[in-house]
Amino acid sequence: MAGEVQNGKKANKVKNLQFLKSTNRATVIKEIVLKKAQNRSELSKRLGLTRMAIGGIVNELIEENYIEESAQPFNSDEPRKTGRVPVTLKIADRSINAIGIYVKRYEIHCVISDIQGGIFYHEFQMLPVDADNKTFLFILRGLLDRAIEENKEYYLAGIGIASIGPLDIYGKRLFFPPNFYRIGDICFEEELASYHLPVVLDNDMNASALAEHYYGVYNQNKSLAYIGFSSGVGAGIIIKGKVQHGSAGFAGEVGHVSINPNGPKCECGQHGCIELYTSISNLLLATGTGSVKELAELLGRGQVPRYVEEGIRECRAALKTMLITIANMYDPEIIILGEIPKEISAVYIENMEEYLNMNMFHHGFQRIQVRLSSLEQEAAYIGAASLIFQEIFNGEIELKSEKV
Amino acid sequence: MAGEVQNGKKANKVKNLQFLKSTNRATVIKEIVLKKAQNRSELSKRLGLTRMAIGGIVNELIEENYIEESAQPFNSDEPRKTGRVPVTLKIADRSINAIGIYVKRYEIHCVISDIQGGIFYHEFQMLPVDADNKTFLFILRGLLDRAIEENKEYYLAGIGIASIGPLDIYGKRLFFPPNFYRIGDICFEEELASYHLPVVLDNDMNASALAEHYYGVYNQNKSLAYIGFSSGVGAGIIIKGKVQHGSAGFAGEVGHVSINPNGPKCECGQHGCIELYTSISNLLLATGTGSVKELAELLGRGQVPRYVEEGIRECRAALKTMLITIANMYDPEIIILGEIPKEISAVYIENMEEYLNMNMFHHGFQRIQVRLSSLEQEAAYIGAASLIFQEIFNGEIELKSEKV
Repeated sequence: MAGEVQNGKKANKVKNLQFLKSTNRATVIKEIVLKKAQNRSELSKRLGLTRMAIGGIVNELIEENYIEESAQPFNSDEPRKTGRVPVTLKIADRSINAIGIYVKRYEIHCVISDIQGGIFYHEFQMLPVDADNKTFLFILRGLLDRAIEENKEYYLAGIGIASIGPLDIYGKRLFFPPNFYRIGDICFEEELASYHLPVVLDNDMNASALAEHYYGVYNQNKSLAYIGFSSGVGAGIIIKGKVQHGSAGFAGEVGHVSINPNGPKCECGQHGCIELYTSISNLLLATGTGSVKELAELLGRGQVPRYVEEGIRECRAALKTMLITIANMYDPEIIILGEIPKEISAVYIENMEEYLNMNMFHHGFQRIQVRLSSLEQEAAYIGAASLIFQEIFNGEIELKSEKV
Repeated sequence: MAGEVQNGKKANKVKNLQFLKSTNRATVIKEIVLKKAQNRSELSKRLGLTRMAIGGIVNELIEENYIEESAQPFNSDEPRKTGRVPVTLKIADRSINAIGIYVKRYEIHCVISDIQGGIFYHEFQMLPVDADNKTFLFILRGLLDRAIEENKEYYLAGIGIASIGPLDIYGKRLFFPPNFYRIGDICFEEELASYHLPVVLDNDMNASALAEHYYGVYNQNKSLAYIGFSSGVGAGIIIKGKVQHGSAGFAGEVGHVSINPNGPKCECGQHGCIELYTSISNLLLATGTGSVKELAELLGRGQVPRYVEEGIRECRAALKTMLITIANMYDPEIIILGEIPKEISAVYIENMEEYLNMNMFHHGFQRIQVRLSSLEQEAAYIGAASLIFQEIFNGEIELKSEKV
């Protein structure tokens, strides 16, 4: 049967009554969590459903303990007014949670976050230098077992995995990342089947973008480009609330756009790729500084040596081209620069927004913000769990009707 | 009321029963037109609806003369077999049509196409050199009046407008294109309100991409990048069946990605933009040839002068970077090169697919085709009308229930 629930996920090509019911439930949750809908009449107005229909959904969600209502606005110290008291809705604390796994180059992290983006559990383990698939899975399962054991009292809706790539996000498979020990070709869905939880996989940049979109300071923007700068440069693109995966999950490789045919040769085969100028590692290299701390100290002195200045100039010139390229190709409302150490963030952000808005192709017809990430290093952790929340908001993962 | 029909278009945030009915009708039309669904049981299987539900929708559409059924496969010379005869469905000839307007730099075209991409009416008029808004609208209305008058017997579902930019596609407004006489700031929806037809506006590249996606030879691909080469270079991107507009309709400006900081200065303010190397005009400039014909003749001779060879080499090097950039940023299944004169197409296509698939970032994990447009110069005309068909397939424009 179409619409069948498999592992908590359903295929919903069919538009039938069950589809209506579950998408409307999902939309109510989404409005309360992300758009701060405060009460039934607001929900009814926003969603265009009758008070009665909204009432039915809200009552069901209250009965199932997912949401709570109070006769007084939450977070308000004002005394109650007389007369008809408005009833305010909110998500019940830790009533909907997800496990987030972040597979990094040197370690695996495991967090649990509530649906409002609050992480209340975080463990991690380093990968040993001789790690193979067996070790990798042993560590991963160990982290998951402990997380679940220590959070038995909470409803965990699924396991979101943010990982370095390349990935087959639809097959939920990690291919063979370069320089990743002897780890590769792992199907997370199969390997984690025994947990009986939905598994969602995406790359770390998309996950971070999603976290910014849901829980960051700039979450009123429906379209954003999140750029992560570390040893490489990658991006997660969200347009009108949807992560842009391309046809096979490989979109967003802004680090490998060649901007100089005479530039240094990149591992990818091209010359003068953006990441060769703008990654944190390459900035340190170009400025001849050994660490972020050293560069920060030099910058702090006010006057920097000529070779440092030259390295910064080169990085900033490439950044400008990158920002214009992103604006011209994706047209987001905001570009968020992530994973940049605070001490050197001026290199990346200073005057960039002004420059972009004077030089992008459609300047004058739109304005694009350029901002530093508000979630900073947390983005990918919250992002991993957000992969599950995303499917709850979309109605693709249905909340359990009977809670344990 | 939400879901209200305005000018034939409806806002459908609400998921109610009316929404179900109209999206299911739209989906049936789409399956028959684009996916060649042949009969009721095929529709029922593909859409996951019961035979009865499909029967209801199909019967309604037959009654309204939008689709036809025959006891024998259409386009078949085989004699009827005995036993139960399968009933085959198809769109009735010219039962659903749209007007397509293509606003080019020097002329306005007006076509009428059926929902299968067949153009059966085509007129155009040059813009006079002193054209202002009044002249422009006079010409546009003249073309529309004649098209409607001469096609009175056909149901015209709307007016799709493909135009040079910049555009406010949501406000259905043409801003001030550079070097476009004294024409600008025209709201098509307001100016054409008297026709009482839905108006959809998009840029010419997106419209051409849509035409390729629906009616081109490569229409089995859900994700494609259409690149148009003329005096400039632009792109229309479709991912999983959806045109990628970005946040404000400005996405896809691949011509203005800078690939050489030491390249010539572009009108957009950057240096070394892709279109400075790869547009047809710039190829002619770089090869020192005065026309496509001249370049074609030189190429035909087998041995070309050194300076022509150098111009071609420069163009092809930039094309390679462009293809990789598009692959790395958008991840389409196919890149379609459009508006390229046949005589010189080898410059643009030869060995490009092989090069791309060996050098894009995720090479080895996916394969991207590179092909010449199958619709050639027709793409934008069919594309303009396709803007209306797109909304019919999406259920955003509902077919009239009573036909004249």
